[in-house]
Amino acid sequence: MTTIPAPRVVDVELDQAWTYLSDIQHGGRLLELVAGVALRGSRHPHPLATTAHFLAAPALGGAEVHVEPLRAGRSASTVHARLVQNGRAMLDTVITAGQLGPAGVPAHLAGHPPHLPPLERCVRSVMPAGQPRNGLLEQLDLRVDPATVGVASDVPEVAGWLRYADGRDVDPLALLCLADALPPVTFALGLPGWVPTLELTVHVRALPAPGWLRTVQRAQLMQDGWLDETSEIWDSEDRLVAQGHQLAAFRG
Amino acid sequence: MTTIPAPRVVDVELDQAWTYLSDIQHGGRLLELVAGVALRGSRHPHPLATTAHFLAAPALGGAEVHVEPLRAGRSASTVHARLVQNGRAMLDTVITAGQLGPAGVPAHLAGHPPHLPPLERCVRSVMPAGQPRNGLLEQLDLRVDPATVGVASDVPEVAGWLRYADGRDVDPLALLCLADALPPVTFALGLPGWVPTLELTVHVRALPAPGWLRTVQRAQLMQDGWLDETSEIWDSEDRLVAQGHQLAAFRG
Repeated sequence: MTTIPAPRVVDVELDQAWTYLSDIQHGGRLLELVAGVALRGSRHPHPLATTAHFLAAPALGGAEVHVEPLRAGRSASTVHARLVQNGRAMLDTVITAGQLGPAGVPAHLAGHPPHLPPLERCVRSVMPAGQPRNGLLEQLDLRVDPATVGVASDVPEVAGWLRYADGRDVDPLALLCLADALPPVTFALGLPGWVPTLELTVHVRALPAPGWLRTVQRAQLMQDGWLDETSEIWDSEDRLVAQGHQLAAFRG
Repeated sequence: MTTIPAPRVVDVELDQAWTYLSDIQHGGRLLELVAGVALRGSRHPHPLATTAHFLAAPALGGAEVHVEPLRAGRSASTVHARLVQNGRAMLDTVITAGQLGPAGVPAHLAGHPPHLPPLERCVRSVMPAGQPRNGLLEQLDLRVDPATVGVASDVPEVAGWLRYADGRDVDPLALLCLADALPPVTFALGLPGWVPTLELTVHVRALPAPGWLRTVQRAQLMQDGWLDETSEIWDSEDRLVAQGHQLAAFRG
């Protein structure tokens, strides 16, 4: 006997604000959208641990988010949400959410914000003239460390300054998108091909302070066409506010 | 209109082989069980990227695994699986699976197997006399580096040698369990409390070679009652075969 209730279905519209190439939605932004629908009205509004598997690229236009609450606990709740278009699952995500307050003193912290050149010596990422637009680079002001892209490096690492282009504050939901905002680490190696994400997990660890964020993305192992990418986002008060882990495909 | 089919339901039995305390199932082992059911008969048998959210502790006895295929691609398939007991969701997992072959030369690899003392200088983990049994420590031969547990350290890191107690080989599915086999890093800090996992993601990167595995687990940030743990498993040929990432709760 199964008492799990039928999912709640919410209509959404996929527009061009964050698309690239032939109207492909940015994966992290899609996750932010679906998670936002899933957590609407929840007493645990902050996505502490969000896991997402990317199944297919949805088309522009209408789609549905199917929301299934799985657990409502005292300090955390878990919800399953699926983006569906024309009856087909496009993105499947599970979110364990909680309520973040002002962050306390870490009991332990390893690492530090990426060492970046000053803002004015970093390069705002834009698409080259004649290339198709990339909505992400319109929505975000991403200033990549020139030492990490554009030069053929042997270190799969990219890093940069990051904020919304209109200067608005970043909330915890937005970190789901921003944890996937940097170009793939393969670009640092001079590999120009597409790097589709199969799976992305984001841990949101603190409420981000206003101001510029710093972000870095690294790969540990690239082998047999698969690579992992770990991203970190640090806020203007040197707090680690988000950690991303993904598995993606690449061509060597 | 939704064309996603109803889940296939498979009956499973939860026994005491891997339980601890009052018949609590080991989380990683539970994940291995559910993923094994989900991937049975799949042409993509290896769990490349598995994400799991732990919802409640199931009781001993009968339970159901609800399996929903989400995508069947050429090089990877994705399946959603849920452990259900008495109509209640206990564990929710999504698995993107593929087919691993003999691993090629890494295009990039950062890091190395943990530096461990020789096997005979590591300590086989057993429960102290008078303590309740822990099935994991019966099923596995886990030889923890004495420098990383039992002494109050200020580094949240544990490491050790690992294999099945009966010496049988480890397959890719078993890595879902073994990525969660070490004691929590809080033990290295002298914090004895329970560290329940909310979410665990495992990336399986290669077929493990026969022989002893080496594993290490580290935390980057412990703050406000939440900690992340990253684990690595390296095989006897110095290949990185699995990476785990989890978010767990702790008491400081």
